[in-house]
Order: sequence, then C-alpha cells, then structure tokens
Amino acid sequence: MAGSVSDRLWRRLMQLSEIGAIPGGGVDRQALTAGEAEAWRQVIGWGREARLAPETDEAGNLFLVLPGRDRAAPPVLVGSHLDTQPTGGRFDGAAGVLAALDAVTDLAAGGRVPERDCIVVAWMNEEGSRFAPGMMGSEAFCGVRALAAIRAVRDADGIGVGEALDGFLAGFPDLPRRPLATPVAAYLELHIEQGPVLEAAGCPVGIVTGIQGKRTYSVCLAGAEGHAGTLAMAERHDAVAAFARCAVALHAAIGGLDPAIKFTIGRVTVVPNAPSVIAREVRFSIDLRHPDNAVLDAAGARIETLCRAEAGPCTVAVTPLVAAPSNGFDPVLRDRIGRAAADLGIPAMPLLSAAGHDARHLASLCPSAMIFVPCRAGISHAPAEWAEPDDLAAGAGVLARVLGELAFADTLPLA
Amino acid sequence: MAGSVSDRLWRRLMQLSEIGAIPGGGVDRQALTAGEAEAWRQVIGWGREARLAPETDEAGNLFLVLPGRDRAAPPVLVGSHLDTQPTGGRFDGAAGVLAALDAVTDLAAGGRVPERDCIVVAWMNEEGSRFAPGMMGSEAFCGVRALAAIRAVRDADGIGVGEALDGFLAGFPDLPRRPLATPVAAYLELHIEQGPVLEAAGCPVGIVTGIQGKRTYSVCLAGAEGHAGTLAMAERHDAVAAFARCAVALHAAIGGLDPAIKFTIGRVTVVPNAPSVIAREVRFSIDLRHPDNAVLDAAGARIETLCRAEAGPCTVAVTPLVAAPSNGFDPVLRDRIGRAAADLGIPAMPLLSAAGHDARHLASLCPSAMIFVPCRAGISHAPAEWAEPDDLAAGAGVLARVLGELAFADTLPLA
Repeated sequence: MAGSVSDRLWRRLMQLSEIGAIPGGGVDRQALTAGEAEAWRQVIGWGREARLAPETDEAGNLFLVLPGRDRAAPPVLVGSHLDTQPTGGRFDGAAGVLAALDAVTDLAAGGRVPERDCIVVAWMNEEGSRFAPGMMGSEAFCGVRALAAIRAVRDADGIGVGEALDGFLAGFPDLPRRPLATPVAAYLELHIEQGPVLEAAGCPVGIVTGIQGKRTYSVCLAGAEGHAGTLAMAERHDAVAAFARCAVALHAAIGGLDPAIKFTIGRVTVVPNAPSVIAREVRFSIDLRHPDNAVLDAAGARIETLCRAEAGPCTVAVTPLVAAPSNGFDPVLRDRIGRAAADLGIPAMPLLSAAGHDARHLASLCPSAMIFVPCRAGISHAPAEWAEPDDLAAGAGVLARVLGELAFADTLPLA
Repeated sequence: MAGSVSDRLWRRLMQLSEIGAIPGGGVDRQALTAGEAEAWRQVIGWGREARLAPETDEAGNLFLVLPGRDRAAPPVLVGSHLDTQPTGGRFDGAAGVLAALDAVTDLAAGGRVPERDCIVVAWMNEEGSRFAPGMMGSEAFCGVRALAAIRAVRDADGIGVGEALDGFLAGFPDLPRRPLATPVAAYLELHIEQGPVLEAAGCPVGIVTGIQGKRTYSVCLAGAEGHAGTLAMAERHDAVAAFARCAVALHAAIGGLDPAIKFTIGRVTVVPNAPSVIAREVRFSIDLRHPDNAVLDAAGARIETLCRAEAGPCTVAVTPLVAAPSNGFDPVLRDRIGRAAADLGIPAMPLLSAAGHDARHLASLCPSAMIFVPCRAGISHAPAEWAEPDDLAAGAGVLARVLGELAFADTLPLA
C-alpha cells in the first residue's frame, strides 16, 4: 500500500462499504434510500473534520465546501456519486467521492486559501437502478433535464423521485441549499474504469478522452392473458414467447454488429408472472452503447422493426429513454492530468469510457475531465468489483495535483 | 336467467367477486391472504343461514357440514376453491363452491335428513400462484403430499405456507378441526371449463371424463453479473440472453410437438433485474400439459438437453415440481351426471379437462367426478373470464340432482 493519503482514503472506502453491505463484498445502497442517507452522514462527518461546510440542493446533490478567497468566483467541483446498483461493488462512485474528499481535505490542511471555492460533490442517483434513467442529480444541476420531470419518475413500488427526495432531504434540515445551474469553473472526477483496458496494460491511471454514446429504451410487448392448461398453442398471444423471439433477434442483429457495440437487456418484467398463466405483457429494457454516434443511431432505429417482425400476435411499443451522444472531455484538463502523472512518475494512458458518468453532463457546463483507475478483470456493478490500493492511491495523487492547479490558478479556465 | 336457485347462486357469485376485485371485472384473492379470509367469512355466513356447521383442518380447507343420519359414515364432499390467480376471474373456483353451497342449502331446506353428512368444501391454494405448486389443500387432505412439506413452501416474499396458514387459521379460532385423510364416500366438483369446447358446441353441461396430465418445472440459468456499458459482448455470461435462446428452442421443440400439447413459460425472474447490469441469473417456470402420459414423459425429458444446447456460457439447473399423470373420473358418477342432465332436459357432452383441479387428488381417495359449464371464448385466469347465468344454473341443477342421489342412497358407492 502507498503512503499516508492512500491509507486514509482506503480505510474510509472500506468503512463506507459497510453501509448497505451485501454478501460477497458487495454494496446495495440505492439512490435516496436510508443506506444512502447513512453514507451522507458519514461523509459529512469526515468533511466536518476538515472544516468543509456541507450543503445540498433541490436535486439532492451533496456538496462539501472549502471556501476560497473569492467566494463569488465560479467554484471547482470534484467528486462522483454515493449510490450503488442493487448488487453493486465498493468502488463505483464511492472511490471518486472519497478521493475528492481526500484531495480537498489536504488542500484545507495545507493552510493556503484557494483562489475560489473547492467543492467535493456526490451526485444524486447516478446509477439509475431504483429510478431510471440515472444521473438525475447532475442532469438537474447542469440544466440538462428539468427537476419537475425528474421528480415525476417512479420506482418499481410506485414511489416517485419527488416523494423520495423530499423525505430524504427532510433528514438533513440544517443543510443550506445551493441554487441549481450556477456557473462552475471546472469539474474533475475519479472513477474505476469498469472495463479491462488499464489492468491489461498494467497502467494505474487512465486519462479519459470521452464517454461512449448510450441509448436506452423501454419496450412493451402486449399479448393476452389466458390459462396455461387450456388455451391451444395456436390461439395464444403469449408475451413471454414473443419476448424470447424478439430478444434473440435483437441480440443477433444488434449485439453482433461489431466488436465495439454493447447491447444489454438487463430488466424484464412479466405480467402477471404466474406459472400457470399465459403472460399478457412483458416490458424490457435495452441498453445500447457505442463510441460512434452514427452506429448508435442506425442500431437504435432498427429496434422497433426487429421486434415487430418477431412479436407475432403481440403488439410492440418502443419508448426511447436516454439518448446521450459520444462526447469528448476538455483537452486542456486532459493535458494537465497527463502532466501531473508524469510529474509524479505514474504511468498514464488515454482511453475512452465505455460507461456513462455524471461528468458527461458537467462537460456541457464547464471544462471537465475524468481519471480512471484499473479494476480487476473489468468487473463492476457486482460484489466482486475490486481496485488495488496502490492504483487508487496513484489516481488520487494525480487528482489532488490537478485540483491544486485549479484551486490556485489566478484565472480559469486554464490555458 | 333461470329460476330461484340460480338467482341466489348468481347474486352470491357477484357479491363474492367484490372481495379482492380488480379493474376489468377480475379478482385478486390469492391463497391465505386477507381477501381469502374475508371470502371465508362471507361463505361461512351463508352456510350458517342454512344451519351448515363450519369446520376446517390443519391444511386450511374449509368445510360446511350438513349432518346426516349416520354421522360415522363417510361423507359426501362437494365443492371447489375460493382462491384466485393474481389477475383471476369471478368464476374459477367460486362458481363450484357456491353451486355446492346452493345444492346443500336446498338439501337442508328440504327437511329430509340425508343418510350421511353432505359437506361443502373449499380447498386451500388450488391456484398455486402465491405458493407453487397449487392444490395444496386437497393434496394434504388426500395424503398425496405431507403437510410438513407443504408448510415449508415459501412465497416470493419469503413467507412460508406454515406461517401464512397459522396466521390465517388464527382468524378463525372457533372452527373445529377435522382430521386429514379420513374416508370420503364420493366427491363432486362443478367448474367453468376454462376452454372453448362447450361454448363452441352450444352445450351447457360437460361431463368431465378426466384431467390431462401436467408436469411443471423450475429452470435456473446462472451466468455472471457485469456492467452493461463496458463488458464486451464476447466476454459476457448474460443469463437473459441465454433465457431468450432457451425459450425459443423450447417453444419450437416442445410447444410445436402436436395440437394437443400446452407449453407455457409464465413466470420469469431476473437477477438483479436492472437496466444497466448484465443479469447473473434467470429463473423461469415451465407448465407442460398433454392428455397422453407418454408424450408428457418424452417432452419433459427433453427440457434439460434443449436448455443446455442453448445456454452458451451459462449453467442450467432443471428442477421438476409437479408430475401429475392423466387420470379418468369414476364411470358410475359420470353416468349419473349424464342421466341427471337427461332427466332435467339439459344437453350434456363428455370432454377432457385441460386444466388441473382438486378433483384429481380426490379421485385417489374416493369415487369422484366433475361437471363443467361453458365460459366465454375459453378465457380464464383473467378479468375477462365470464359464464352465462343460464349455463351456470343448468350445471348447478345437475350437480344438485346427483348430490341428492348420493345423499339419500342406502349404500355408497353407487352401483
């Protein structure tokens, strides 16, 4: 294990992973749950030890503020998210928030007042597992999506984001509320790669060039309910049978398009989902990603046609949800990350992010960049998710160095 | 609408359907729920009006007893079930219990004491939607399955039959408990056909020759969880993709075997079932029915091989649940039903039951038979389930007549 910074960071990361712990070393700490509230309290407590002032906003984002000399200047934000998938790991999100907290804590301890506020941030509902689609906090903060539309989204139990958010924030009555969509000088985010590239290259730091495009859809196949023992096969409008044919066709036509495509049906909901009842409805999710926006557009446009060809007597309704094009991060910040790594003697390489991150939305608001650290076998969104302490320390060291440049620069953006 | 008997029967059937009513005219009154308890109270109340004594047993069956001259003689049982599918209809089960109550109520009102006890029965958990597989009450009563094994079954929330049953019966502390597996002289059950044969033939009464064989299975496909945005298609162990291939292959190979086969995948459970997570597990149900036991055996034996050939990198585990062979009902009782219909001037025809019923298990204990009435378009296990009042009155009239013969016969079985 590396020096004192990483000791504290690693210890806190393991401690935080006990909140919502599930068997196998995983974490279930979904957005706006009691588990996430407990994680907030823990992180706010660590921030207070460093004299960082906790704040929130109407979108349920958490901020820990180190005040700068010019309080009116746009701040530097650095962070990630504290929510996880229902069977998530210990590093996705939490590593970025705690590395940011570590860097700002050291800034505060250094005694020199930064030029502008430096703020640790934990965005609300990055994962999108309880309330889909995710990245709601950064969307609202950046003005990408109206808060009213976000508040209307419901979870599987019918609970709306609005209700959950009001209940969640009622647990933190003393936190001042920052306005949404205020200017930001720069945004940095450290995250595990969630892919195998850095590990295979033996490289502890990735300079993220951009995020691959993503499209998501909800597909509804509607058939007719009936008795499994009596209705002849030829007379059925079986939504499960139709789903199986559609899924095989979609996997063949889109999942096999080229080596860069990612096609996933991760959620399937059957109604009424009883063994002796022919299903009247199947709803399923599609998650489609590719670095080339033209490929994404073409593949997405084929979904409805492919389903209609296979749905037999069932009807098909395809609802597009997320349409996030590929984007590139700020070239100046990417260059600063590379220089910081070189100064620290840490190997670094450029790579594309296959997963989506809140930094996608921040990039529309201010110069933004991301630092990746390797994760074992590329596994993420699973209890087996793992990052090596030394790699995390290397990434956090680079993050802290670039943050220092942003904190003390006379003017931003950096040139 | 027919005469006074059917007026009462129809009125009660509509009244009972308000307990657990769901949109579209359906009923959600699953086994051992508060809704079923309310239905019990209603039916017990109607029984008490006719001086029928309510009783239960350790398996949660409900009995309404009209005492006969010889209380020690094996009784005649007549009934069906009060539980429904989660999106069930108003007739499946309830029609048979209320037709039986109508017949025994008229017997009691007639003033002539029957030779032996005549008992209306409502079996526990016929449907098997909350606790699978179904017909638990008749299985326990007939000694087909040990009560301890039944009590160990759990619902989707992890609640066991034992716990649910104890809680349910605690709501009826005054009911005497009949012993299980005691001799029975004969069993009659009226039910909607749940198929299109009688309606197509314009025939109000079906004399059920037997019940087609049924096999059910639970199949588990185990893959590996991963991030939908990062893991290359070639490296995935995607349980949903494997399920789709298996389901298509099973439908083609087994569902298309011959016109008499019924093959249904009605329940699919995906873990973790999140849009951006590659599923690590899919569990699905198979419901397979055919009148020929040899066809059932051969089709059932192919399930595991078919799944293994399509599961790719996922593992396959097939668990057989129910294996109920085709069975035939008592020839003497079938003949009496035909004669009763003829005496009443009601057209009747023999037909095979495509659906399973508690009478399957009673047939192993005593001479048993079933009367079917038509249902619209063969629809059942759905809110649109419908039977015409006149058809129901015709079936109930035949049931009452055969019950009378069984009630007053000097000796049973009938010759």
